[in-house]
Amino acid sequence: MSRAIVITSARNPLLKEVRRALAKGTLTEDGLCVAETFHLLEEALKSGLETPVVIAAESVREPVERQIGSLQGVRLLTVADAVYQEISATEAAQGVMALVRPQRWSFEHVFRGRSLVVVLDGVQDPGNAGTMVRASEAFGATGMLWLKGTVSPWNAKALRASAGSLFRVPVMEGLDAGMVRAALKQRRVDVYTAVPRGGVALHEADLTRRCALVIGSEGRGISHGMNGAGVDLHIATSGVESLNAGLAAGILLYEAWRQRATA
Amino acid sequence: MSRAIVITSARNPLLKEVRRALAKGTLTEDGLCVAETFHLLEEALKSGLETPVVIAAESVREPVERQIGSLQGVRLLTVADAVYQEISATEAAQGVMALVRPQRWSFEHVFRGRSLVVVLDGVQDPGNAGTMVRASEAFGATGMLWLKGTVSPWNAKALRASAGSLFRVPVMEGLDAGMVRAALKQRRVDVYTAVPRGGVALHEADLTRRCALVIGSEGRGISHGMNGAGVDLHIATSGVESLNAGLAAGILLYEAWRQRATA
Repeated sequence: MSRAIVITSARNPLLKEVRRALAKGTLTEDGLCVAETFHLLEEALKSGLETPVVIAAESVREPVERQIGSLQGVRLLTVADAVYQEISATEAAQGVMALVRPQRWSFEHVFRGRSLVVVLDGVQDPGNAGTMVRASEAFGATGMLWLKGTVSPWNAKALRASAGSLFRVPVMEGLDAGMVRAALKQRRVDVYTAVPRGGVALHEADLTRRCALVIGSEGRGISHGMNGAGVDLHIATSGVESLNAGLAAGILLYEAWRQRATA
Repeated sequence: MSRAIVITSARNPLLKEVRRALAKGTLTEDGLCVAETFHLLEEALKSGLETPVVIAAESVREPVERQIGSLQGVRLLTVADAVYQEISATEAAQGVMALVRPQRWSFEHVFRGRSLVVVLDGVQDPGNAGTMVRASEAFGATGMLWLKGTVSPWNAKALRASAGSLFRVPVMEGLDAGMVRAALKQRRVDVYTAVPRGGVALHEADLTRRCALVIGSEGRGISHGMNGAGVDLHIATSGVESLNAGLAAGILLYEAWRQRATA
């Protein structure tokens, strides 16, 4: 690949579209997510997902080439370092981004087996949301339902915080609260809505049955649309009023995992 | 207090020292921590800690005055908005910072009762460290020992992530690993070192006895100095290699709390 052409203008149509997606924190118009860093490139390639394009800054072309190796169907696009910096979402950029086509998931994936479903109901911080995906994978959640009003999973920060879990965990996004409530009801899933206080304490809830954990927004909690969808659930603490949303969701998932492992 | 004098130069000696402390992420030379935001001001005043000075940007002087109310011994310093912005550590500053004298803690505080002690062994990210303080308070840790090489608790980001818990949780900092190992041994505390894999699984460990949880650095894990200080402990997961350090520490603490609540 030593004959690579180096793109020296950020006005290249593909690069313009990548920059737009990164700035908006969404998929490209072609439905690809933009995964920056060597680690996410590796995770993307390992995942087996379609990765039609990898963009490398000129100065790191060789390690990127080595990482791609002899994989078929991956086009390597080399851009001048200054151009890379212009389109990148991170200040200390490593100089590599993969365009990856996320798998399309359905309720059948999310609700498979003894379901443990995480419903994101307005989570705003992409770092928190990504941490929740990571914890979902770590503790065996069968899938995630992201309601309208929640940050996009394909935001660069969410993708980084998920450390690649977003390439593997069944995630459906942009969902209507009413439709999700109906789906939960129809499948007879126990629904728990996470609240700062009130309802049942986490360690006293039975999470060994098919269940869904609803996580509200950092500022406003559970939305009007999901209000009353299930039993309120809180993490008992020693006087602290609230925990970081990512930590709280992680603890809920750990507890479900622990109960299922020891039941 | 309508006769307040407004400082219009950042060269004022106190302001220079505050800016230096914020930039370095440490206490001021006078041993005060700089707590920015209305929330931390409120937490500082509620804590009863000595708060000799509150600095307010001119445009928010009135709400700051209201919050201080008739408290004795608090000097309000009003500065021009541009000066405030110059010394502040945050981009979207709220215009208020309190200078607070942290309590000095000893081993007697940290090891009181049925000890649950968190040892930070090289944690680098101030957000992670602050989250760990928050979780320590939430789940009833008796205190924290911060070893040399760990970020300062008085870093602005750590303080913010702790959401005020740093004003209440017994924290000793800058400690020597050998000295801490000796203290743990002398007090016959069960020591667990958190590792990504190997050793005992968290949900199978008995954390109801007096114990210490050692959390290593995000990149390098447990330090040479603490290596072998206790039993390795990991969080069993479904194939995920690692969790965010703040989340992992929070789950360890939740599990200790849960076991002690249900024992």
